[in-house]
Formats: sequence, C-alpha cells, structure tokens
Amino acid sequence: MTDINRQITLNSRPDGWVVPDNLSLVEGKIPEITAGEILVRNLFMSVDPYMRARMNDVKSYMPPFQIGKVLEAGVVGEVIASQNSEFNLGDIVVGMLGWEDFSKSDGSGLVTVTRGPLPLSYYLGILGMPGMTAYAGLVDIARAQPGEVVFVSAASGAVGSVVGQLGKIIGCEVVGCAGSDDKVDYLVNDLGFDRAFNYKTCGSIAKKIAELCPRGIDVNFENVGGEIMEAALWNMRDFGRIALCGMIADYNNKDMTPGPRGMGVIIQRRLKIQGFIVFDNPASNREFVQKAVTWLQQGKLSYRETIIEGLENAPAAFIGMLKGENFGKQIVKIA
Amino acid sequence: MTDINRQITLNSRPDGWVVPDNLSLVEGKIPEITAGEILVRNLFMSVDPYMRARMNDVKSYMPPFQIGKVLEAGVVGEVIASQNSEFNLGDIVVGMLGWEDFSKSDGSGLVTVTRGPLPLSYYLGILGMPGMTAYAGLVDIARAQPGEVVFVSAASGAVGSVVGQLGKIIGCEVVGCAGSDDKVDYLVNDLGFDRAFNYKTCGSIAKKIAELCPRGIDVNFENVGGEIMEAALWNMRDFGRIALCGMIADYNNKDMTPGPRGMGVIIQRRLKIQGFIVFDNPASNREFVQKAVTWLQQGKLSYRETIIEGLENAPAAFIGMLKGENFGKQIVKIA
Repeated sequence: MTDINRQITLNSRPDGWVVPDNLSLVEGKIPEITAGEILVRNLFMSVDPYMRARMNDVKSYMPPFQIGKVLEAGVVGEVIASQNSEFNLGDIVVGMLGWEDFSKSDGSGLVTVTRGPLPLSYYLGILGMPGMTAYAGLVDIARAQPGEVVFVSAASGAVGSVVGQLGKIIGCEVVGCAGSDDKVDYLVNDLGFDRAFNYKTCGSIAKKIAELCPRGIDVNFENVGGEIMEAALWNMRDFGRIALCGMIADYNNKDMTPGPRGMGVIIQRRLKIQGFIVFDNPASNREFVQKAVTWLQQGKLSYRETIIEGLENAPAAFIGMLKGENFGKQIVKIA
Repeated sequence: MTDINRQITLNSRPDGWVVPDNLSLVEGKIPEITAGEILVRNLFMSVDPYMRARMNDVKSYMPPFQIGKVLEAGVVGEVIASQNSEFNLGDIVVGMLGWEDFSKSDGSGLVTVTRGPLPLSYYLGILGMPGMTAYAGLVDIARAQPGEVVFVSAASGAVGSVVGQLGKIIGCEVVGCAGSDDKVDYLVNDLGFDRAFNYKTCGSIAKKIAELCPRGIDVNFENVGGEIMEAALWNMRDFGRIALCGMIADYNNKDMTPGPRGMGVIIQRRLKIQGFIVFDNPASNREFVQKAVTWLQQGKLSYRETIIEGLENAPAAFIGMLKGENFGKQIVKIA
C-alpha cells in the first residue's frame, strides 16, 4: 500500500459557475491516527448541489468550505485502522468525510452499515441523504395525501426520483420536470410518474404545468427555485404545500436573485412554503431507510446511479452535476 | 325619511394607485324588499387594503368588484324593515354590504350583535375582521409562544395594532414598524410594543430590524410585503414562521413584483411561510371576539379609530388608507 493520500481542496471560491481551477488535486500523506480515532479507506463519495452553497463564504446550516482545505462529502468507506472501540477493522461506515483517498475520524457522525444485497454506493443516494431528504420533505413537511397532485422539479435527480416514486407509493398523482427528453422518458417509463415534461423545450413552464396538472398542484417538492418554482407557485391549489428543499437555480448567481413574482397567491390560496434540511428529523430518516430497503428489494423503488471512476475525476463530476449532465445520482468511485 | 339611496360604485379599474375618478357617487332609490329579505340602514362602513385587490379583474378568494356596480365593505347597520324571521326591526347586524346608505340582504353572512358598552364601529375593527385576522395569524398560523420575538409590519394599522398587543398578552417580545414618528410613539407608549421604528426614515430596514431584534425574529406577522418583508425574512431565526396576511406594497403595482431576494434562507433556517385569510377558521374568530371584549373592558387591549363622516367621503378615506394616512382603523360613519 502506497502512503500517498490524494485530496481535492478548494483552491478559490467560485465566482458564479464553478470552474475546474476552483478545485485542486494535491498529494499528502496518509494521516496517522491517535487514541479514539479511526482511519477510513474511502470507497465511494457523493457530489451534491448543496456543496456549491458551501463554496461561498456564507454561514449556513453547514460551515463554508475553507480555501486550501480538503472538501467534505458524503462518503462510504472501510475502516482500515482503529483506535476507537466502537469501530472494528473491516467495518463499513457512512458519513461526512473528505474528498480524499483516506480520511481519519473520531467517529462522530459516522454510522456503520452492513454489506448486503444492495450496493454500498446506495448509502450515498437512495439509502442516504438524498433518499432521506425526499421522504422528510414529502411525508413530514408536505404531508402528501392519497389522491393529491404532487409536482417535483429536478425529478430525475437523486432526490426528485425518490420523491416521485414515494408519491406513487402513497397514492398521489405525480408530475415532474427534467432537463432532457431521455430523463422525461425515464420518469414516465421507469419510475412510474403519471406525466412529465422537459422544462428546457416546453415553452412556458407555467402553461405546461397547467396543462399537465389541470386540477392544480397540492404538493410542490421544490428542488430548483427560480422560474420553475414561480411556475409551480402559480399553479398551486388552495391549501397547497411547497416543501422547499433546494434552490439550485440560485446557487451559481453572484447577486441575490429575487423570489417568484406573484407571491400574493400565497395568501389568496392559503399556501404554506416550508424549508427543511435532512438533519432535522433523525427518526424520520431511520424510518425511511428501513422501508426503502424493503421497497428496493420488492422492486417498488427503482434507482439509477452514474458512477465515475477515480478521485481525480470528482471535480468534473461535481461540475457536470451542477449543470444537470448526470442521469440519476452522481457517485465517484474512489477505490 | 328621504327615499334616496346614495351609493359608491366602481367607475373604472385603477391603473396603479387608486384615483378619485375610479369611484363614482350615484343616487338611486331605497331598495324594496321581498319575502326573506331585510332592509338595513348602514351606520358605519370599513375601508380596508384587500378592497384594492378586488378592484383588479382577477379571481381570488373573493370575486372582483364589477364596473358600474356598488362596492362592498364590512358594514354595521340597523334593520329597518324585515321579511325574514331571523331578523327583527332594530337589530344591529354586521357583515358584507354595500358602500351605500341602505342595503337589502337575504341575511346570509350577516351576524347580529348586541348594543353594549363598546362602540358599534368596533365590530368593523378590533371586534371584526381586522381583530380576528390578527388572532388567526398570530395564534393559529404562527403559533407564537411566550418568550419569542414577534415582528409586525404596518404595526399601527387595524390588524398590526392588535397583533402587537396580542403578542404582549401571550408573553412575546414585540417589535413593529410604521410610517411616521407619531405612529411609532403610539406603538411603544400606548400599545406596549417593546420597540418600534419608522421604516420611512430608518435607512436600511434590514439593519434596523437586526439592531432592534438582536436575537432575530421568531414570528413575522407580515402585512406589507416588498422591501419590509425581505428585511424581515433576512432576520428570521431558525424555525421561524411568517404569517403572510397582506402584501399591500404590491397591490398598486401594475406589474407582478418579484418576491424577496435571498429566499435560500427559508431552507437554511427551516422557515415556514403561510398565507391565510380570516374566513378559514370561524371557531378561532368566535374565540377571539369573546376574549377581546373582556380584554378591552379590562384595558388589556387598546384600540384607536379614525372616523370620517359621510358616505360621500368614503373614496377619500379609502385612498388615504392605502397611502397610510390614517391612524388606527379607518371607519366611515354613514348615519
């Protein structure tokens, strides 16, 4: 085993869209561990939209990434050295670790999962934060009910694809949008969405939603913000709920973008807009993972990943994901 | 008794701000009633911000006013003829009737109130829709808790003045803004607000709120929208609630105005924005009126009206109210 530990660090803060030069590949040594610590060989890492927000120097629910420091990601790894009695050699752990070959940790925030019939990378997607986020937003926040109309933006993404399928399991009518015809086909033919459209080619998004949701929308699971959120807002029914999960359309804007026009409908139709993050309700997360393992094995949940090989390709995977180039959950295979 | 019935009708739809020519004073005959109907001599009418929205040709929770037709308002009146067994001569009724000397009605939507120690005009203000709106938003929608920080815009208005006082009764810290130094004094010295400021002269509203609410805002009772709502949003604490009651700043804009900038904080701080209208929860309204009568008599609630005399002055009262010229609830005394 080589003693080199490759790492991806933040070279400079992006000014608008992330460019390759904002990230650096550096080589260090494998960290040494002391009492209470473990050494993890990282197997898979996740790239996600929220990371873009952490590249700005703005305080949020997670601290901003620091220039010159290794970036963080959701990681699945194997414990290869342990001075912590809660972790044994060979344990598979999931949690926030570095964009790097090897991470050391005191174990806080890491959970141990068992190797089973499902791929370990699933713990970064449908069995990880994206899947839990979908469940928290649709079930806990929006309280989607059987027979209601659910609209999901970024519907083929890691979160959206689970939202739509959960909606069908609940008994909702599910409509989604995505950024290519292939993705739209995937939503309807593979994931069981009732209807879907390509927001890049449909013309007026608001009119398209009105056409596909003639009764209006009861629950909007909002991943995108901007024009898509505005169009969904205008199509909400009385007492509708918007679970606000992401506003990826804004993350790359240097200036603060204004909110949707016509917010008076929030009053007229007595709408509720609620922001949430996945860490707020651990009980809900556990409940979801338990159910999802069963649903996956029964074929009630379908899941798609795009896996790119090699830590050195993580920056390209991240930039591509921000531009919507991935199909399903974007994963980087490190080892 | 003369048989003339003066009426204020919608002459033309306003293009931006309401101008006197949008409204007409016309003279008709006192309506004749038939079986099931009553004739009401209107004593007081209310002018309120929501009326501006009804002057646009837009479907909402109430239908738009029609050109050439008499406008509607909250009215207190006396039954002077009745062919309806539920109403007797001399009964005092409150409900939606016309901007006119005499209205006929089949009684639907009217409630009978008793003459007591409090002025009848109170049923158009603190004991009417504005008071009920304050209670519904603060208690049912935002669920303000003791010790929390409540921020109210348009705080000296018919709704805002009740919100602030209810906040103090609940045990909250209450901060408000209004459009003149006199109104600010009134908030702090007469209504018991903890702190207040003049949004027209304070410079950055967001910085002023941050200065007066150093812990941030738990509950924003939002009456105004626009720049004030944006400033409040930026100062919300984690898990804060915005009860969205009105967006008066937008009602006179011809174009749809964009929402607040920086709506990403809704996610980061897990905020909830909920629109509501006063008709949604009649049980809450009844509960409030019962409590408010007691609070008023005990001096725990203070109330201020501006009463203008004469139906012919209702248009000026309405236009002045939209510009913030009134102090407390604007009432028109008809008879």
